[in-house]
Amino acid sequence: MTKRKLETCFSPALYEPENHVDSIVVIIDILRASSAIVTAFANGAAKIIPVADANEAKVYKSKGYLVAAERDGYVLDFADFGNSPFNFTRDKVEGKTIVYSTTNGTGIINLASGSYRTLIGSFLNIGAITGFLLKQDRNVLLFCAGWKNKFNLEDTVCAGAIAEKLIESNLYSTICDSTNGAMDIWSVASRDLSGYIEKSAQRIRLRDKKLDECIEYCLTFDTTNKIPVMKDGVLVENIY
Amino acid sequence: MTKRKLETCFSPALYEPENHVDSIVVIIDILRASSAIVTAFANGAAKIIPVADANEAKVYKSKGYLVAAERDGYVLDFADFGNSPFNFTRDKVEGKTIVYSTTNGTGIINLASGSYRTLIGSFLNIGAITGFLLKQDRNVLLFCAGWKNKFNLEDTVCAGAIAEKLIESNLYSTICDSTNGAMDIWSVASRDLSGYIEKSAQRIRLRDKKLDECIEYCLTFDTTNKIPVMKDGVLVENIY
Repeated sequence: MTKRKLETCFSPALYEPENHVDSIVVIIDILRASSAIVTAFANGAAKIIPVADANEAKVYKSKGYLVAAERDGYVLDFADFGNSPFNFTRDKVEGKTIVYSTTNGTGIINLASGSYRTLIGSFLNIGAITGFLLKQDRNVLLFCAGWKNKFNLEDTVCAGAIAEKLIESNLYSTICDSTNGAMDIWSVASRDLSGYIEKSAQRIRLRDKKLDECIEYCLTFDTTNKIPVMKDGVLVENIY
Repeated sequence: MTKRKLETCFSPALYEPENHVDSIVVIIDILRASSAIVTAFANGAAKIIPVADANEAKVYKSKGYLVAAERDGYVLDFADFGNSPFNFTRDKVEGKTIVYSTTNGTGIINLASGSYRTLIGSFLNIGAITGFLLKQDRNVLLFCAGWKNKFNLEDTVCAGAIAEKLIESNLYSTICDSTNGAMDIWSVASRDLSGYIEKSAQRIRLRDKKLDECIEYCLTFDTTNKIPVMKDGVLVENIY
């Protein structure tokens, strides 16, 4: 049996869309976009429209949409709320369509739009993500959002955790150095995930901005089985 | 005392030259360009002219220069030899000026030309490199060549080994996720470096092409104290 191919990309600047036309791409931006999106669906959101450009989000706001928008962690002035998963509460999002624009995460969701399928991954839904992938017969790319095109630790650690499960299944193989590196970093981080993330630059940035109340939550495994998936430019729930 | 800043870049596609104008940049492309360059100076080469473009190397050849040039591991037809460190023997290179063009390494040497100083690093001269850096009062960027813009394990491991020494000195600090990731990968790899490199994609490529005779050598610590350094577009030896 030919094994499925598993690859990892550490930055939007390194993404090669032509190599992933037939792959399932898992977007990972755990602090905080992908954790927030997963939380929104866990709390009953109907749809999320990812928008890379802040001005486009503003236009949606003027049309009456619920808008979540941040840059560098801070809520944009026209938006209803920002990027913390704790904003996406059931009373705010249930049944709603949310327009969402963030520093790193939403841009790469659109970047991956030419792939076979784009999913949103995080620790919060890691079991659901790996369980779903194992049932497909597809190559997989784990696509880390990074931070302003830079490699980041927190997304790498999550990619490594997903990769470990897929490789252990024996259904996937990898000769991708980024995947092997991510699994090795995960092997170090998994001994004490919260302690490990203390040194990540984004952890430090969020603490400095007093935006770090959600970190422990974002590092929690399997709070939901929801898998946000792109369909016709919009994120919806578990529709394959 | 303000500590010096240590950063790491995993790919030419992620390099931000404007951030490193005042930094010392260490170029790392251990399989095989940086190991070959270090070996050339260890064997008495006078100068190396790094040339990114193969056609430019060909013009130099027509002018009578000794030319080392490869693409994807294979010697280009007009060149005197390719990219294996074992080509750069004393009888061939002593006292000579060598024109050198490779798939990844020489391009990034030129990319870093706007930095304060560009050095060539490898395991072969790792003690000399770290010893030199500790004596300077400069920020440092460890610049991994990667492979065709991708992250690679072998350069990351070498960067992690250098970073560990610099951080241990207490003269440097880092909040760079790439540096912390490289040190964690090094912490895994250092238990058995040769065994670890077995899984790297470049290790597999070189084996497939029967170009892997030099791997063990490239993973050897401190065979020389020579530090190749860029001066006016040409690599020379230990001139600061």
